[in-house]
Amino acid sequence: MSGRKVLITGAAGFTGRHAVRYFHAAGAEVTAVVRRLPEDPDIFAPEVAKYVCDLSDQGAVHAMIEAVRPEEVLHLAGRNSVPESWRDPLLYMETNVMATLYLLEALRSQPAGRILVAGSRLKYRPGAEEGPPHPYSLSKTLEELVSLAWGTLFKQPVLLAEPCNLIGPGPSTGFCSLLARHIVRTETAESEAELQPFRLSSRLAQRDFLDVRDAVRAYDVILRKGDTGVVYRIDSGAPHRLGDIAAELLAHTSAAVPMDWGPEDSSPDHDSAVSAVSGREDTAYPAEHSAAVLGWKPEIPLVQSLADILDHYRGAGKEGLV
Amino acid sequence: MSGRKVLITGAAGFTGRHAVRYFHAAGAEVTAVVRRLPEDPDIFAPEVAKYVCDLSDQGAVHAMIEAVRPEEVLHLAGRNSVPESWRDPLLYMETNVMATLYLLEALRSQPAGRILVAGSRLKYRPGAEEGPPHPYSLSKTLEELVSLAWGTLFKQPVLLAEPCNLIGPGPSTGFCSLLARHIVRTETAESEAELQPFRLSSRLAQRDFLDVRDAVRAYDVILRKGDTGVVYRIDSGAPHRLGDIAAELLAHTSAAVPMDWGPEDSSPDHDSAVSAVSGREDTAYPAEHSAAVLGWKPEIPLVQSLADILDHYRGAGKEGLV
Repeated sequence: MSGRKVLITGAAGFTGRHAVRYFHAAGAEVTAVVRRLPEDPDIFAPEVAKYVCDLSDQGAVHAMIEAVRPEEVLHLAGRNSVPESWRDPLLYMETNVMATLYLLEALRSQPAGRILVAGSRLKYRPGAEEGPPHPYSLSKTLEELVSLAWGTLFKQPVLLAEPCNLIGPGPSTGFCSLLARHIVRTETAESEAELQPFRLSSRLAQRDFLDVRDAVRAYDVILRKGDTGVVYRIDSGAPHRLGDIAAELLAHTSAAVPMDWGPEDSSPDHDSAVSAVSGREDTAYPAEHSAAVLGWKPEIPLVQSLADILDHYRGAGKEGLV
Repeated sequence: MSGRKVLITGAAGFTGRHAVRYFHAAGAEVTAVVRRLPEDPDIFAPEVAKYVCDLSDQGAVHAMIEAVRPEEVLHLAGRNSVPESWRDPLLYMETNVMATLYLLEALRSQPAGRILVAGSRLKYRPGAEEGPPHPYSLSKTLEELVSLAWGTLFKQPVLLAEPCNLIGPGPSTGFCSLLARHIVRTETAESEAELQPFRLSSRLAQRDFLDVRDAVRAYDVILRKGDTGVVYRIDSGAPHRLGDIAAELLAHTSAAVPMDWGPEDSSPDHDSAVSAVSGREDTAYPAEHSAAVLGWKPEIPLVQSLADILDHYRGAGKEGLV
């Protein structure tokens, strides 16, 4: 990997921080792109170049690519809150579609600048009568369409990946992180009456959880070996019930954690990450393959991910638990 | 129609001028939206309100809708040159996708503001492996997807129409207008050596030509009676060979018009407007219907359209022929 010049957008985000650490540790020359300078200056190693850029500013994106001249781009930036997308749908179109286009267009002038665009399982199929369930879904579908189109129209090496639910240490708002934070808050609470119970929407609902560090390795493999015009799914391959995940996390503490397990008979729902594994084969284009076809496989067991998340919050101090 | 408040974008364009004239003549209160004030102030009747707005400026679009408060919007504005879309693909995404979104979003605050978005036969099917043939095609497909999505996400009365090749008097760069202009230039040329021959790419290629005034009537019918989630095709239903169209136009002149008829055995190609009539039924969504299902039908015969185009150029004076 030594000598690779990698630009990573969304570098201050949950996955971005892991990606910066991984590529830097592997000897790549990394540029970490952030919307604004992070409050904690130590989130990146000192050798990592930091670049502040508002990706929804076309001129700024062009100038950045001209200045950095990356050989590879890992495009993780984007907005990903469904409720926020209802409140400001245009912001989602601008951030997730136009900003990606600005990057793709700026890279057209770079010979062989490979770019990986991180997609979402919450995309919808444009030919489906029900339409997108929310503006976030629409934005991720259009982001995929323009990425595919720039690949075919301009023969650009554009790569697409679709991760499942990523978990691990760091600033995540996913289920595992929220419960782990709740556990550590209970452990450090001064009185038992301080905390509301943590509520499970469903014990039986299944989710495909994958360690974010495994996903970052998959991004690396796709950047190096992936084909344009294919969507690479990044899955653990083993969905888990939310109730089982909660029990595993709670086994790591001796505190009496207030829990609301929800109704006993909650009907098992499966999220799109799970159904996608079996349900997407009818889509003619783009082809969807597991990243396993490129030789990648998950390495970090779920129990390790969960333990690391707890350690993250136990070491975070009170300010990280708010 | 009296009392209807109709806002028409792209009002200075070929179709826009006819639309403004039609809705004004029918008694509607028309606002003609133009990017800049036209050089000829008389292209609109004095009672027609003119509004200068750059539709790619979100704030300006919002202010316009707040000020005009239209009950119906006929959105004809957009860029439609395939070669230009190759030169500046982002401009096409901004003009044909984002500007339409700004309009849709601004109309969300208007109770029952119906909007008709004019699409293109050159769109592509997002699930098709070959991808879009050019950035213009991509932009029109995404414009349709966001229009459909705003209709379902926000329960907006968004209507979609797809006209075939529109012809008629006025500033068009289509085949019929170009040849008519060539004929009138020949008639008014001072020496025979002045003109290059007009070259047909194919005599046998078929195109579905429809008078722009018939199309404007279809837009009116769709605005009044159309359903959201349907694409209404506006076709003449009778494709014609380019060679036959040329012969018909040439029958209206006694001048010796220099022509290059192309190879005798040119293979018949059919444009997407023709193939669309039979070839699109496999698309599950959106449903595509002829505007005929709403009771519309073409009224102006092709020979009348062609005669009117010639009259337009004969009355245009030299400056209209350049």
